[in-house]
Amino acid sequence: MDTDADRIPDHPDIRAVTLQQVLEALVDPVRRSIVTQLSDAHADVKCGGFDLPVSKSTATHHFRILREAGLIRQYYVGTSRMNALRRNEFDDVFPGLLNVVVAADNTSLTHG
Amino acid sequence: MDTDADRIPDHPDIRAVTLQQVLEALVDPVRRSIVTQLSDAHADVKCGGFDLPVSKSTATHHFRILREAGLIRQYYVGTSRMNALRRNEFDDVFPGLLNVVVAADNTSLTHG
Repeated sequence: MDTDADRIPDHPDIRAVTLQQVLEALVDPVRRSIVTQLSDAHADVKCGGFDLPVSKSTATHHFRILREAGLIRQYYVGTSRMNALRRNEFDDVFPGLLNVVVAADNTSLTHG
Repeated sequence: MDTDADRIPDHPDIRAVTLQQVLEALVDPVRRSIVTQLSDAHADVKCGGFDLPVSKSTATHHFRILREAGLIRQYYVGTSRMNALRRNEFDDVFPGLLNVVVAADNTSLTHG
């Protein structure tokens, strides 16, 4: 039986995530775009709700990398997989990193 | 003639450096170690003065990547090539990023 518990992926304790893992997640422009769009949305966003230049299966891969790096939490609402930024938990372990990356990414989008 | 000007490598205007370039520089553990050691030294350090697990020629490559990403400034004192963290200039364009990475890297070194 496909219960909700089966469908919700595992999420790491962010204290077990290394800076190496976080930087490897954030160095990819598509993954950084997901984080920036989530941050700018000020709300959780379903997987299909992002503006991304990649296929659905590639996007799924990027969401998984972000989830394993502790940056996003995924859960289901009906058949939609939702994504939430784990901002507070993340800021506790890597203070300021998320804000800096999102701010710099938004600046680079604006100014080229 | 090998003047000082010939020997000092070009340094980019940090406003022309992209976040992508900075993250690509910082995602490498050896390069992050160089930045962290420079920050912790509170002084400029010659290329031979770092504790690095790579050959001299590989280290030279890493110094070049950091220089091109606007993270370090290189200059000569006699025959020694010195390295300085461009902290203030860098913080103006990517506020907080350097501190966060150095702090997180030091924490990860301490706690595994």
